[in-house]
Order: sequence, then C-alpha cells, then structure tokens
Amino acid sequence: MEVIVTSKRDRLLQAAAEAKTFAYVPYSKFRVGAALLTQDGEIIKGCNVENASYGGTVCAERTAIFKAVSEGKLKFAALAVTTDVASPIAPCGMCRQVIREFCSLDMPILLAASDYLDNKQDGVRESTLGELLPYSFGPEDLEKDRT
Amino acid sequence: MEVIVTSKRDRLLQAAAEAKTFAYVPYSKFRVGAALLTQDGEIIKGCNVENASYGGTVCAERTAIFKAVSEGKLKFAALAVTTDVASPIAPCGMCRQVIREFCSLDMPILLAASDYLDNKQDGVRESTLGELLPYSFGPEDLEKDRT
Amino acid sequence: MEVIVTSKRDRLLQAAAEAKTFAYVPYSKFRVGAALLTQDGEIIKGCNVENASYGGTVCAERTAIFKAVSEGKLKFAALAVTTDVASPIAPCGMCRQVIREFCSLDMPILLAASDYLDNKQDGVRESTLGELLPYSFGPEDLEKDRT
Amino acid sequence: MEVIVTSKRDRLLQAAAEAKTFAYVPYSKFRVGAALLTQDGEIIKGCNVENASYGGTVCAERTAIFKAVSEGKLKFAALAVTTDVASPIAPCGMCRQVIREFCSLDMPILLAASDYLDNKQDGVRESTLGELLPYSFGPEDLEKDRT
Ligand SMILES: [Zn+2]
Ligand SMILES: [Zn+2]
Ligand SMILES: [Zn+2]
Ligand SMILES: [Zn+2]
Repeated sequence: MEVIVTSKRDRLLQAAAEAKTFAYVPYSKFRVGAALLTQDGEIIKGCNVENASYGGTVCAERTAIFKAVSEGKLKFAALAVTTDVASPIAPCGMCRQVIREFCSLDMPILLAASDYLDNKQDGVRESTLGELLPYSFGPEDLEKDRT
Repeated sequence: MEVIVTSKRDRLLQAAAEAKTFAYVPYSKFRVGAALLTQDGEIIKGCNVENASYGGTVCAERTAIFKAVSEGKLKFAALAVTTDVASPIAPCGMCRQVIREFCSLDMPILLAASDYLDNKQDGVRESTLGELLPYSFGPEDLEKDRT
Repeated sequence: MEVIVTSKRDRLLQAAAEAKTFAYVPYSKFRVGAALLTQDGEIIKGCNVENASYGGTVCAERTAIFKAVSEGKLKFAALAVTTDVASPIAPCGMCRQVIREFCSLDMPILLAASDYLDNKQDGVRESTLGELLPYSFGPEDLEKDRT
Repeated sequence: MEVIVTSKRDRLLQAAAEAKTFAYVPYSKFRVGAALLTQDGEIIKGCNVENASYGGTVCAERTAIFKAVSEGKLKFAALAVTTDVASPIAPCGMCRQVIREFCSLDMPILLAASDYLDNKQDGVRESTLGELLPYSFGPEDLEKDRT
C-alpha cells in the first residue's frame, strides 16, 4: 500500500466528513461523503445523490470520481469515505468498479466511522482498492483475445 | 418555457463545448459535453465518463447534475448539451430521469450541434425537460397512496 | 400506433399485475410489474428488484426486457406496466432508454392503474415509446459522423 | 465454501456457456454468459445486454439474478460465469453488489475460461462471493444506528 502522510490524511478525512453536508438522500436518509486526493495534492469532494427511480442513484465515491475526471484530473493518491454510522462502511461494488477504472490497486482507501475523531482505536479502517476488489474486471480484460 | 437571455445562452453553449475536452471515452469514442446554469448564474460543466464494465458509465448531463448537487447547488435555470456530431443530440433517458429529480418541466434544454457556431439555422434545438420526458416518473409518485 | 387485439391486451394487463407478486422492494415498498408481448405472442413478466446500494436497483420494465433478450427474443409487440397506485404510472427514463434499444417508436405501452379492472374510464392509459421518449438517443446516433 | 457435486457443477458450467448465445453486444463485442443454480436445483441463464447509452448496459450475472427474482426464486446455491476469453474472468463490481443482496458470502462462484473443457488445469477458478466482495456493503448496513 502507498503511504499518505498524516497531515494529508487528516485533511482528507475532514473533507469526506464535510462532503456529507450536501448528500441528497430523501429516500434512504443514508448520508455518505467521499473525498478524493489527487496526486497533485488537490481534494475533490462527493456525496450520494438519490433518485425517485432508485436505480438512478449515484454514490458519494462515484460522484467524486466523475467530478475529478470532468475537470481533467485522472491521477489519484487516496480516497476517504464516511457515513453517519459509528463504524467504517466500505464502498459498494458499483463504486469499486468505477474506482478501478482510474486507480491503482495499491491506492489507499480510508473508511472512517462517523465518530472517528473520538475513536482513535477503530475509527478508521485502512484498505486498498486491490483488497476491496480482488480479481477485478478492468480495461485490459476487454483487450484479451477472444476465441 | 422559461427564457434565458442571449449572453447567458452563448456562455452556456460555449461551456458545453469546452466540457467535452475531458470526456473519458476509450470505448465509445463518443464525446459529450454538458453545461448546467444555476439560478444564481453559475455554470457547472460535465462530460461522459465510461467504464470497462459499460454499465458503470455516466453521461455528461448526469456528471454536471451530480457535481452541482454535491456542491449544494439545487436550483437550475438551463442545461446545454453538445457532442462531436453535426446535428443536435438529445440526452438519453437515464439523464432525463436524473434531471427530472431536480429541475422544473419548463426548464430549457439546449441541444447544440458540434458546428452550431457556423450553423445559425439548425445548430441549436431548444427543448424543455417536459418535452423530453412526458408523463415523467418523479418523487411525488412515490408518495401516492398504494392499494 | 400499432394495435393489439383486445384478448391479447387483457392477457398482457393481467400478466403485468401478476408480475408484481415477486417485486423485491424492501426499500421503496413500491411494487411494479411489467409484461412484454413478443411478436410471436409470448408474454414475459418482470418486476423491480432493489438493492441496498440503491443505484443497483432495476425496474420491472428492464427486467422484462433483459429476460426476453437473454432468451433470444428481440421482437416485441407491446408492453404493459402496473403498480399499486390507483392511477397509471409511466416508466422511468432509464427504462424508456432500454426499451428504445429494442422496440419501434410506435410500439404500444399500456399504463394500468392498480384498479384498472374496476375503472374502465381512466384505468389504462395507452401510450407509445415514441410519445414517452421523443428525440430519443439510440444506436444510430453512435454511427453518425464526428467532426 | 459450500460444495456442489460434480454433476451439477458440469451442468452449471455448460449452461453458462450456452447463455452466451444470446448476448446482445453490438458495442463491446464481449459476450458473457452466466448460470445461476437455485437451491432447488434449477438453473437460470443470463447474458449481457448492452445499450447505445452505455450506462444502460446490464451484465450477464445481473440478468440471471433479476430473472430468478422475478420468478420468485431467491435462494441460490452457485453461480457460473464464462466469456469468449481463454482465461477466467470475474464479475464486475456492479454484479458483485447485486449478487450480494441475495446470496451468502460462502456461495461458490465458478469462473470458467472459454476453453475450460480442454483446459482441465486452469480452466475454472473457484471463488466465493465473500472472496470477491470483502467488507461488502449490504442490507444490514442501512439498518445501523446513525449519529
Ligand atoms: Zn457505491
Ligand atoms: Zn445520458
Ligand atoms: Zn425504470
Ligand atoms: Zn457486471
């Protein structure tokens, strides 16, 4: 796993918590915030945005990725995710798939409990994309020879 | 249909064309740009972002909406969409559904051909959400009495 | 609009109502049933299937289409949709887009209120894909010249 | 991991290969077939179904799940997936998420190379949902206390 220095890590976790503010969740009431750190040190925030036709919903992690890409940012150093639940919650499979398109398997993904600032012990689980999406399907699979 | 003044209209069309720059389209090679005008006069740009698992793809229009909502902007005045095709192309049904969650049915949607600046006659088709998604399914449908 | 004879129409509406039975809707509690009539006279039923990550949800209409296609059925004569609401509810934009891939614009789409059998007046709204998805985006758009 | 007897295993792999037949893949040309074994010993086949708006695409695995649920089948014993590539390809993250809603973490998922019948050594990789989607997000997460 790549390492991110403590100052950046704290800033990223703080940004994920802030990102929850604008979560549009009239249906689930389940707010999620995500913050994506670019390799240039910039932070991009995303929240979940739901739809009356539930399948039109996007998660916080994907919102952050789509925002970044739409601004020409394609190289990422870390992702942090948090919710209103007092234990770490990991990205859904759909988000893992979208992250996979742009991020290396050793990119750190920080999963923060809502009370992570008070809960120094178990407040933040550190994972990686590779750990969360083993045997992943990615762009190179589409290039493989077909029989 | 609401009316947007010419200066804002030109700025919005220009922004949609610029938004195409960052389209991530390794699979379709079909670049789309969208620009969303908030009621405060701000413009938010989006492009399409594809995925090796095609279903993970998001369109330009949705990217713009998700970006805006994630920054606390929920009131929109107009949307412009453009592609590399020399005729107006309308949003897909999925984007119409996501726009429906946040925009009024009379919100103008401008569909610009790639060469709209040279093609004053047919370069821009003006539509509205209500025209593009009649009998739409929206948040109020979920509130209706069930039998 | 193409015409479907009354006996088939009744069977199709009945099938859409039956299809609601298996709706998996722990989150919205909003059951939807769809029934697709093939040109060979066969009926394929679909319901909505939700997911804890709301974006993973599929609607009844798409379930019916995906089922049909996965069994080699690609030519359709009509679609009926019903819910537990006592007025006709139309497909969401996402479903209109998926229907668009396989059906002609004049294909009848029947929207049935939950009590359509008792409500002969307003119980069933008859529409078409073309009416529900005007200026649609479809396969031929991807073939257009790019500038 | 649960165990499935050899005769069922062979039937399931065969069904996944057959399921590819109806893959609707005009855009990716990447055919995928999936076969889902219910706890009652029934097999449900699915293929991928693409859309001109790529985000409207569904994968083979999800097609199989949606079909089964729409027929009232909710208890599954195993899933097999195959493509035209001569090595095992695993489900995308979106499919893992949809499988997660209905299947236990120890459910076997068989990933078969296109030539698995000739390639007894490396033709079939045996995995489980839990291995493919660790720290998964599921229905119980939505029930957790919010702070
Ligand atoms: Zn997600
Ligand atoms: Zn779209
Ligand atoms: Zn729908
Ligand atoms: Zn998939």
